[in-house]
Amino acid sequence: MELQKIEKFEIIGLIREAINEDMGGYGDITSRWLVSNKKNAAASVLCKQSDGAILSGLDILQYVFEEISSKISFDRIKKDGDFINDKEVVCRIAGPAASILAGERTALNFIQHMSGIATYTYRFVSVASKYNVKIADTRKTKPGLRRIEKYAVSCGGGFNHRFGLFDGVLIKDNHVIAAGGVKKAISAIRGKIPHGLKIEVEVKTFKELKEAITEQADIIMLDNMKTSEMKKAAEIIRNKAVSDCIIEASGGVTLESVEEICKSGVDIISAGCITHSAAAADFSLEFK
Amino acid sequence: MELQKIEKFEIIGLIREAINEDMGGYGDITSRWLVSNKKNAAASVLCKQSDGAILSGLDILQYVFEEISSKISFDRIKKDGDFINDKEVVCRIAGPAASILAGERTALNFIQHMSGIATYTYRFVSVASKYNVKIADTRKTKPGLRRIEKYAVSCGGGFNHRFGLFDGVLIKDNHVIAAGGVKKAISAIRGKIPHGLKIEVEVKTFKELKEAITEQADIIMLDNMKTSEMKKAAEIIRNKAVSDCIIEASGGVTLESVEEICKSGVDIISAGCITHSAAAADFSLEFK
Amino acid sequence: MELQKIEKFEIIGLIREAINEDMGGYGDITSRWLVSNKKNAAASVLCKQSDGAILSGLDILQYVFEEISSKISFDRIKKDGDFINDKEVVCRIAGPAASILAGERTALNFIQHMSGIATYTYRFVSVASKYNVKIADTRKTKPGLRRIEKYAVSCGGGFNHRFGLFDGVLIKDNHVIAAGGVKKAISAIRGKIPHGLKIEVEVKTFKELKEAITEQADIIMLDNMKTSEMKKAAEIIRNKAVSDCIIEASGGVTLESVEEICKSGVDIISAGCITHSAAAADFSLEFK
Amino acid sequence: MELQKIEKFEIIGLIREAINEDMGGYGDITSRWLVSNKKNAAASVLCKQSDGAILSGLDILQYVFEEISSKISFDRIKKDGDFINDKEVVCRIAGPAASILAGERTALNFIQHMSGIATYTYRFVSVASKYNVKIADTRKTKPGLRRIEKYAVSCGGGFNHRFGLFDGVLIKDNHVIAAGGVKKAISAIRGKIPHGLKIEVEVKTFKELKEAITEQADIIMLDNMKTSEMKKAAEIIRNKAVSDCIIEASGGVTLESVEEICKSGVDIISAGCITHSAAAADFSLEFK
Amino acid sequence: MELQKIEKFEIIGLIREAINEDMGGYGDITSRWLVSNKKNAAASVLCKQSDGAILSGLDILQYVFEEISSKISFDRIKKDGDFINDKEVVCRIAGPAASILAGERTALNFIQHMSGIATYTYRFVSVASKYNVKIADTRKTKPGLRRIEKYAVSCGGGFNHRFGLFDGVLIKDNHVIAAGGVKKAISAIRGKIPHGLKIEVEVKTFKELKEAITEQADIIMLDNMKTSEMKKAAEIIRNKAVSDCIIEASGGVTLESVEEICKSGVDIISAGCITHSAAAADFSLEFK
Amino acid sequence: MELQKIEKFEIIGLIREAINEDMGGYGDITSRWLVSNKKNAAASVLCKQSDGAILSGLDILQYVFEEISSKISFDRIKKDGDFINDKEVVCRIAGPAASILAGERTALNFIQHMSGIATYTYRFVSVASKYNVKIADTRKTKPGLRRIEKYAVSCGGGFNHRFGLFDGVLIKDNHVIAAGGVKKAISAIRGKIPHGLKIEVEVKTFKELKEAITEQADIIMLDNMKTSEMKKAAEIIRNKAVSDCIIEASGGVTLESVEEICKSGVDIISAGCITHSAAAADFSLEFK
Repeated sequence: MELQKIEKFEIIGLIREAINEDMGGYGDITSRWLVSNKKNAAASVLCKQSDGAILSGLDILQYVFEEISSKISFDRIKKDGDFINDKEVVCRIAGPAASILAGERTALNFIQHMSGIATYTYRFVSVASKYNVKIADTRKTKPGLRRIEKYAVSCGGGFNHRFGLFDGVLIKDNHVIAAGGVKKAISAIRGKIPHGLKIEVEVKTFKELKEAITEQADIIMLDNMKTSEMKKAAEIIRNKAVSDCIIEASGGVTLESVEEICKSGVDIISAGCITHSAAAADFSLEFK
Repeated sequence: MELQKIEKFEIIGLIREAINEDMGGYGDITSRWLVSNKKNAAASVLCKQSDGAILSGLDILQYVFEEISSKISFDRIKKDGDFINDKEVVCRIAGPAASILAGERTALNFIQHMSGIATYTYRFVSVASKYNVKIADTRKTKPGLRRIEKYAVSCGGGFNHRFGLFDGVLIKDNHVIAAGGVKKAISAIRGKIPHGLKIEVEVKTFKELKEAITEQADIIMLDNMKTSEMKKAAEIIRNKAVSDCIIEASGGVTLESVEEICKSGVDIISAGCITHSAAAADFSLEFK
Repeated sequence: MELQKIEKFEIIGLIREAINEDMGGYGDITSRWLVSNKKNAAASVLCKQSDGAILSGLDILQYVFEEISSKISFDRIKKDGDFINDKEVVCRIAGPAASILAGERTALNFIQHMSGIATYTYRFVSVASKYNVKIADTRKTKPGLRRIEKYAVSCGGGFNHRFGLFDGVLIKDNHVIAAGGVKKAISAIRGKIPHGLKIEVEVKTFKELKEAITEQADIIMLDNMKTSEMKKAAEIIRNKAVSDCIIEASGGVTLESVEEICKSGVDIISAGCITHSAAAADFSLEFK
Repeated sequence: MELQKIEKFEIIGLIREAINEDMGGYGDITSRWLVSNKKNAAASVLCKQSDGAILSGLDILQYVFEEISSKISFDRIKKDGDFINDKEVVCRIAGPAASILAGERTALNFIQHMSGIATYTYRFVSVASKYNVKIADTRKTKPGLRRIEKYAVSCGGGFNHRFGLFDGVLIKDNHVIAAGGVKKAISAIRGKIPHGLKIEVEVKTFKELKEAITEQADIIMLDNMKTSEMKKAAEIIRNKAVSDCIIEASGGVTLESVEEICKSGVDIISAGCITHSAAAADFSLEFK
Repeated sequence: MELQKIEKFEIIGLIREAINEDMGGYGDITSRWLVSNKKNAAASVLCKQSDGAILSGLDILQYVFEEISSKISFDRIKKDGDFINDKEVVCRIAGPAASILAGERTALNFIQHMSGIATYTYRFVSVASKYNVKIADTRKTKPGLRRIEKYAVSCGGGFNHRFGLFDGVLIKDNHVIAAGGVKKAISAIRGKIPHGLKIEVEVKTFKELKEAITEQADIIMLDNMKTSEMKKAAEIIRNKAVSDCIIEASGGVTLESVEEICKSGVDIISAGCITHSAAAADFSLEFK
Repeated sequence: MELQKIEKFEIIGLIREAINEDMGGYGDITSRWLVSNKKNAAASVLCKQSDGAILSGLDILQYVFEEISSKISFDRIKKDGDFINDKEVVCRIAGPAASILAGERTALNFIQHMSGIATYTYRFVSVASKYNVKIADTRKTKPGLRRIEKYAVSCGGGFNHRFGLFDGVLIKDNHVIAAGGVKKAISAIRGKIPHGLKIEVEVKTFKELKEAITEQADIIMLDNMKTSEMKKAAEIIRNKAVSDCIIEASGGVTLESVEEICKSGVDIISAGCITHSAAAADFSLEFK
């Protein structure tokens, strides 16, 4: 599947924020007297992860350097979604040495974080794809980074759930409490939400599951159920719910547990850990 | 040591960004018809981490809800830096149900990320403090989140290195290449940087180490050396360098390797992983 | 149906922009020397529309004055969604005269625009509700004003379609061209979009309609069809499509044509004119 | 008269706001999987208004697409201020199909709104120009859109009044009340306002008119007077006021009443409706 | 004359910018470990200028501390426009010691700069007021500080010229060159600029002066003329121009030359130096 | 010493703010009808300071015009740090006349302010360099302008002290009061501040000086001492303090007093007046 790139205008605010955070009002005081304005340099960006990584964020890396100087040229060798082996070069850059030094850390911070998520997602997807189950992300992302984290998930083969509160209806546990039960919650919003949206509801018990089926929820999320319960729930849904009801599993999914969940008959597994707990993938920029 | 709190005006921009990211231009479409504007609710924020966590971000959590509604009250039970056991409540909030639901995920995303870093840092500090060695952070942080990540490090007992390129001089490998060696690099900037700053230099070899000592670097960072090399380097520095030269170790530090490094005689160990690879600590908001 | 209010934090950016636009960098030069800082005044906001209006924007009016001065008090008499007769007072305000004068035009510009849309929408809804057909808005809004215009539509009893490109899938004519037909378009995105979203497709011909039915589009928009064609199309859909397929009519809907369209059997009528061509409703602020 | 174009830097903030409003944090989810990043397309922007329209906003249209992608080329056929017949093409664009689809609605929302105002203004000007009377705009504009709405007025041949509170002195009814009469109001500010500004005062009665004449107001606005009263007032001013006193009529001006007002002898007619109540002019973007 | 205060919403952006500039992303690292979060302090702001100063900026000082902490109380002793003797206290503040230390420099930078301008302006006004001549400011202000610098001018008794390019018409030397002479320039814009604005033109020669008179300029600026030429020019204008033509002198005005210029018969003297070259007035914040 | 240029991305926010301040929402109303969009012009920027000036801000001048129009070309003749004689041309620009007129004042306001600071600094440096003493700036800068003012100091040969509160530790008088003495203050922060920072302390008395020496402060600032006291203090420090302790003099430094201070044996003199009280250097833009 072709990846849909993040256009510069979508992300430039965050890039400026990140550069500013590192440069402050005063800039790079180490390079200032160390490197002449006129000195040029060439450098490579390469993977330093011994077990390799899925690349994510090469466009962002380029945007960072473009923002710092229009004189930096960029030669891509790999593309997002590629598996990169240890010591493999992903791109080469050339331009004013001081500008490359100024952008180095900010650019790497993007790529190491995004590739870390892509790589971790890829491990879940490698398991789940055998069962034709999708691995989806959640809203458990870092503040201000949801766009790039969700993109990184897609680089790793993952599937994007709703972006935020505004583009998908998901009745969660606290909504159920506030509304007075699953049944009341679904009936309260049916016909009022924009008609292009389905209704998803989170259920924790079989009682709630029955109400969700009766109220014809479009998507049922089995929340924090044991695998055996999920299996039973999936059977009930397949038998009684409307034909195209989607079953989603969620809650404490790990690399250890994901295969068992896949076997339970669900369509989609959403896992917060792929965005909130992925370790960074190590990338480095080296001057020649 | 007393923690220096993050004042609201320092962080409000990021908080607005995070809320906006989740709410979009359209707000919380699930709650809109589910919960009356007038309905109030009470909720608890509690730890869901089976092995507990160091709390970080309680102020931020409050700022998020304050930004969403001035009608939410806040009762704190724990404070940042506290160790929180599984299922322990850290604070209680009360106010309009729709507002609490609107802020829930954004607030939790802050606290789970910050507490994750604090908790992971705490594990390194627990080892290093026995040897009177400090654990310091690096600039390997997530884009736009450096302020809260560095604060989280301090909640876990860690020590803050320079914030960015603007508030500390650190001559790194690429600077050394650009300047033509350690000796040239140090002499190029001596007397030119603001006089309140020390000069730190990264050395990879004993040849570079000698130059750093000869040029009287204030801080010498041993980069990616083996523990045996670090030990030897530390001895050389203690014997030959200016009396108060600080020795910092860096490069691929892990929970497994940190104790050996502490024994090598360094003063400070800086570890990128405490900010770039900490897993989130699980916190949850539950309606009563 | 209870209206979901626009919270201040959602709209404060636009309010500041609007105030700044009127005040420039220099403020209100007429009042500066005309009215002492200490002079207080009381004023009423009232309807000046001879045939009355549906009120929309009273919260925004208050936010404008709050932003200008914390010393302005506010006494509401009517609420959004109410029908206001000519010369009826909707609220009273009191505070520093110079501050009220400074905010007057900006506040009125919000309320006259929003109430204009609410009032115009209400006329369509009055017709359509007899046929149990919903009147929906479109993305044909003024730049930067979509949030308040969609809210105004809801004040007039209208129904909100997707907010933007990000929260609903609608395959329009140019998408169909780009994808090579309705069939190809639907199959290209099925299974890839977030699973909480339905698939809506715009059809102009009966050939396209058939493809939409075959591909099991969740919502079919009949675009710019004659009423007789719509009637025929609706029948085909009711007979052949999946049971819960929603039928939407769109394209050049006017107050003159809306009743005929309602009779054709569609579920929803989306009308760009309710947001892009509503005349303002006249409101005035009068000093006592 | 040559139109003074709006430079990109003057309007780019609003353009970004408008794009962001439509794209959210997540972008165009319909096109994402429908159209390859590499697919190019050509399209025309054309008028769909059966009775034609005055074009306004072609620069803005281009700025929108430029902001979205640097790869979109632009071929202009018409220019702002031109009368465009139904189905006439105003420009052609070519570039990545996904980028054109992403910008389509935002770009059209600008041009349809601006051309609507230009067209409506033009109808008033067509009447008034026969009497050598100017049609001026007011501050009754949509929040945040004043710059483009005033420009649109000039495209339709209208005349721009002051932009905001900061660049022109206009003593209105509430100022008169706050100051204790027309006489007191004028004398309070004379000599204190920047000396490049004239003093304009709004009068509702012949008593106020006399005070305005006595106090030598530079501009007298006849507010909400009947045509017969205006005629009488104009005569009084011509006889007694300083020689170059400008007479402005305002208050509920409509296309029906404008010719009568022109005959009353005033110099300028300011009409809020040309900005606050103009219907959009229909423009469309069609793929080839 | 009562001063028109700068409201907080007009200036908060600059205040945040200034605080951020001093605090960076990392805050006040000296106070962080020196002063407990809970320690309170009381302090006085006092004048340290041996020859005294005109106070300007007390509101801004308060806004700065309010932005940093809501716990700081403020007791005003003097007000803007007052003459303050050396060592006189202008206000007292109390609150968290760390917050006062954090805001100290930023707050003082505002007040010392604004009071410097007010004091310098006051010296010109003291001379000119004897001749009933006004001292006006220009657009020669520091980038981003025009609002506060023009306000400071008014605190010193000075008169505000147009704020920027948008709120006053002033045909300057380069405009004259571009338009092909004074005559052509005036006639080109007459009737096109908003009717509330006068036409001011800069003349350097008697030839240009004649054209300005013939074209009935409302304001004539004598630019860089010798005092004897000004005197002659003023006489010509009084004799031949329209009765209320205002005469403005400009160009290299100094404290030494201002009295002679006053005697030449001009109405207004505009002096760039009062904003671009005023030395700061020394103010200090002292802890008790 | 090579000057480190200010990159565009570091300063573009301030440039936009300054342009916007001058243009408002409405632009340059004088040029609008005076100069055709198509008319081109050529102009020179030249020094009008009879005693010459040190140039500072040529990059910023160019950035201003680039922001206003991409059609303006720029030919540099001088560079920052050069001494410019009266009437010497520093650069030539060519492009649309209206764009040059729009940017003229904003561009000149930058260069006149920055060159004023550079020139004033240069006078101090000319004296101090004979004694091998550095002239340093302070945080007494104009709000929002610190970056360009500190750069201007370096253009004049001055030395940059810390940028703000975040990048250098300086224990000032109020800190000493809050901490309970110099000794307590230094010991409170030693070991807690980032290890790349030295500790500077301000002393007013010989008692405080002794504490500073005992606590091994890295930098001792002699605050507001008489020259004879400074001499004595410097001797004490040279004899007793750690070998590389830096001595800084501060407090009321003037061009008259600076030479005497240099003779007292200090290393660095920091002078607030070079940024807070420098008169502007006159530059002008002249059309050909």
